[in-house]
Amino acid sequence: MSELVFVGLGLNDDKGITLKGLEETQSATAVFMETYTSRMPDFNMERFEAQIGKKVQLITRSDLEEDSGKVILQAAKTGKAVFLVPGDPFIATTHVTLRIDAEKMGIKTRVVHGISIMSAIVSLSGLHNYKFGKTVTVPFADNFSETPYNVIVQNKKLGLHTLCLLDLRAAEGKYLSIKDALKQLQMVEEKKKQEAITPLTVAVGIARAGSNDPLVKAGFVKDLVDWDFGEPPFSLIIPGDLHFMEIDALLAFAGAPDEFRRLAK
Amino acid sequence: MSELVFVGLGLNDDKGITLKGLEETQSATAVFMETYTSRMPDFNMERFEAQIGKKVQLITRSDLEEDSGKVILQAAKTGKAVFLVPGDPFIATTHVTLRIDAEKMGIKTRVVHGISIMSAIVSLSGLHNYKFGKTVTVPFADNFSETPYNVIVQNKKLGLHTLCLLDLRAAEGKYLSIKDALKQLQMVEEKKKQEAITPLTVAVGIARAGSNDPLVKAGFVKDLVDWDFGEPPFSLIIPGDLHFMEIDALLAFAGAPDEFRRLAK
Repeated sequence: MSELVFVGLGLNDDKGITLKGLEETQSATAVFMETYTSRMPDFNMERFEAQIGKKVQLITRSDLEEDSGKVILQAAKTGKAVFLVPGDPFIATTHVTLRIDAEKMGIKTRVVHGISIMSAIVSLSGLHNYKFGKTVTVPFADNFSETPYNVIVQNKKLGLHTLCLLDLRAAEGKYLSIKDALKQLQMVEEKKKQEAITPLTVAVGIARAGSNDPLVKAGFVKDLVDWDFGEPPFSLIIPGDLHFMEIDALLAFAGAPDEFRRLAK
Repeated sequence: MSELVFVGLGLNDDKGITLKGLEETQSATAVFMETYTSRMPDFNMERFEAQIGKKVQLITRSDLEEDSGKVILQAAKTGKAVFLVPGDPFIATTHVTLRIDAEKMGIKTRVVHGISIMSAIVSLSGLHNYKFGKTVTVPFADNFSETPYNVIVQNKKLGLHTLCLLDLRAAEGKYLSIKDALKQLQMVEEKKKQEAITPLTVAVGIARAGSNDPLVKAGFVKDLVDWDFGEPPFSLIIPGDLHFMEIDALLAFAGAPDEFRRLAK
């Protein structure tokens, strides 16, 4: 057998994997895992290895990018390799190349999906899925870009919400905070003045999506900048037009202030 | 205890639930499930009930919509109720009202996420997640709408991909096919002539996302119209601008024809 199965780990710990993903991992001849595209804050490796009955080999970014994932491809060539990836395996584009390389070598590939931040954030916010436009990542300040602001403006023109993923360097334990993301967006606002991120703009901050204690807080930018969201990871939604049912949800699940009631469009 | 936990079942069978979701269900005092927002083609109820050690009560659309989910709320009032929902529990907006009602009654609510079609389709296609615009649902012909076409046009103007969910009436076993969805879009094209869906438009059809035998086929509309996708459910992506890495992925995983090589933007 010559097979490489990409298995999604979900968002938080060793219990976010599906039963199907667990079975695939249990029956693998070699198991690899990476934690550099996203953090798994409460992952217990000892418990997980006991459950799958074998050791997990940790893969670094350089194993994959500089060494083209050779160690994984070699194992897949002569057996059934499982590569465990946080979230849903191909939402980050990082692993598409590995999958293409495997297929070119005649290794059969499959995907066992995992919980993705993309749906978890929509699901937690109570906002309507079909009202989200293009998603954007807000980078760290040393990698500053006006793109996130421009995407928000573009989505707002169409009445659409913007999901802002906040950059992270998981290996270094660095996570862009909601406060810093909002500050960056406000800096672009000062220059471009398109009224996309004012102190009275509505925003929804989310911390620890997929964990046992997610925090969802809706409010005006002026309030969220000083809100204590606790531990990372973080995400941010800048809503476009809000339906009254979405406002009801933000009031009920996300501690939105009463002033939100007059925002319905 | 007074608690209602919404647990996502994922996309296909009784093994798409996460370990965390399974534990929550095992420790519940009452377990409910619905299968009307989406089909779970290979769900084995007997095996699932054996695994959780209790019976599952099936909920109909009218239990929820006409009867306001009373049976669930009553169970949650005096114990820990789990409500099993296909996909990620709040990607369909159907259950937001139930969650709001529960919170208003003083019942604590939580979400245990499930695999969503939203990420699975992006992950399977090899297309870049941040290049998707607004998502749309193509309805059955008896519910015809020009909206899907207009959304595709709007997304294409921005270079963005459109994920088209295809309508389903799970309780009646009816699923809109990729052929019928494309035909509807072509009808609007004939009227509006914005070159969004011509026979030479690039499209990606996906069948059975999340199952053990998903089918992903990229091609021109003229070819996909007659492609045999097998069993439902189905989805469709109308790509906007394609990056060369996205084209590589469509060639490697989705049987795209060689002519795709000249499409990179």
